[in-house]
Amino acid sequence: MGGAETHNGLAGQRPPATVIIVAAGSGERLGADRPKALVPVAGRPMYQWSLLAARRAGRVGAIVLAAPAGFEGEFELSGGTETVAEGHPAYVVTGGAVRSQSVLLALEAVGTDFVLIHDAARPLVEATLFDLVLERLEQDSGLSGVIAATPVTDTIKRCSPAASDLPLVSETLDRSLLWAVQTPQAFRSDVLRAALKRPGALAAATDDAMLVEALGHRVAVLAASAGNFKVTTPEDLARAEVELASRPEAQA
Amino acid sequence: MGGAETHNGLAGQRPPATVIIVAAGSGERLGADRPKALVPVAGRPMYQWSLLAARRAGRVGAIVLAAPAGFEGEFELSGGTETVAEGHPAYVVTGGAVRSQSVLLALEAVGTDFVLIHDAARPLVEATLFDLVLERLEQDSGLSGVIAATPVTDTIKRCSPAASDLPLVSETLDRSLLWAVQTPQAFRSDVLRAALKRPGALAAATDDAMLVEALGHRVAVLAASAGNFKVTTPEDLARAEVELASRPEAQA
Repeated sequence: MGGAETHNGLAGQRPPATVIIVAAGSGERLGADRPKALVPVAGRPMYQWSLLAARRAGRVGAIVLAAPAGFEGEFELSGGTETVAEGHPAYVVTGGAVRSQSVLLALEAVGTDFVLIHDAARPLVEATLFDLVLERLEQDSGLSGVIAATPVTDTIKRCSPAASDLPLVSETLDRSLLWAVQTPQAFRSDVLRAALKRPGALAAATDDAMLVEALGHRVAVLAASAGNFKVTTPEDLARAEVELASRPEAQA
Repeated sequence: MGGAETHNGLAGQRPPATVIIVAAGSGERLGADRPKALVPVAGRPMYQWSLLAARRAGRVGAIVLAAPAGFEGEFELSGGTETVAEGHPAYVVTGGAVRSQSVLLALEAVGTDFVLIHDAARPLVEATLFDLVLERLEQDSGLSGVIAATPVTDTIKRCSPAASDLPLVSETLDRSLLWAVQTPQAFRSDVLRAALKRPGALAAATDDAMLVEALGHRVAVLAASAGNFKVTTPEDLARAEVELASRPEAQA
């Protein structure tokens, strides 16, 4: 269960996993002139907060960051920012046109049996969450994935397509069974690779687990904090700024 | 379309609507020793922010607040806090054991053809949102309700019941059709009354619109800001505090 000494393999019995940080999102909805992962939050480019958390996780052996094409050189994984430079080998790979393609390209650099996918747009992730999803996956050989999620607190309705001026409600869903998916998501590397290579898989997936589910594999959700939210709007960015500014790694 | 002068009926053609503010929620999840609506936010009890917004809406003629039983005397609708005292008649009624019952009890004090239901747990509501949902409902005689909502941005999965230790994913929903419901929700008063009086209606509803839908009536969603969020957790409360503290009505 975490702890700095496990970085050096002292926890021992179980081999480490690889974290893939997906940093391929555009900054458009934030009104930014650069990819979202490079937008500053509390003095650091957004992706560095996820990198810091992944490096502190007990079972992480390597980190692969999928960067937007053309921006690979702007991701600083070693040197420069000393607090993110130690501990693990880290690689930047060029991402693809859609999210799932970026994950597939990054997976080619993964040699571990287990992999953790994390979106750079969730900079508030805690290091322990990487360990928790990984450990739960390892404990149950019947599972192919364990994903962080939060119980849905809003009432959710299925409506006619949003293209219509005023969408009509078709169904109020049973909220007690709904979970809002986050990252990290832990998978058996071979299963995720097979899921992503399936014809047509890359186009429409909003998360990686749905591709694994589509192959008939079992995926479970693990309750995480709603504080691990995704930065999508300028309001989200302001909120992340406030919360990360109080961390010791924040830079003025 | 709003404007202070419509308070006095100068806009004229259309009769005003009543706002019901539902303030019956417990403060338990906030760690508070009082009902949620009475928890202070930016120097005011939470319910006052909704009251301020409702009073500024152009088409609101009266306000009924459903208070938790035993706390009716702590809701200050006139006098005392001058900025919420003017403009509209306002009444406190005793709420019921569940949310929908509070709405039904409050409806007994409503004499207008249209009613707007709003949760006191959404203190960031803007005055214009009351007018917008009401106007859209009035414009379409085929609709019985128009409700504020936001497109869902997270991936949502339907899972096995949360009572299980690690719920299994059964389905990833098509996010493009999902809306997260907010308040205010505008209804034809007679339809809402009938929906709430239906046997069994009061027990399980997480919003009022689902009861109207269950009667076969058409309900539409109107896109609102995600900033109109529901205060549920201490983190939500901190976020509301930050955002409301910059408004001129905030009190130190």
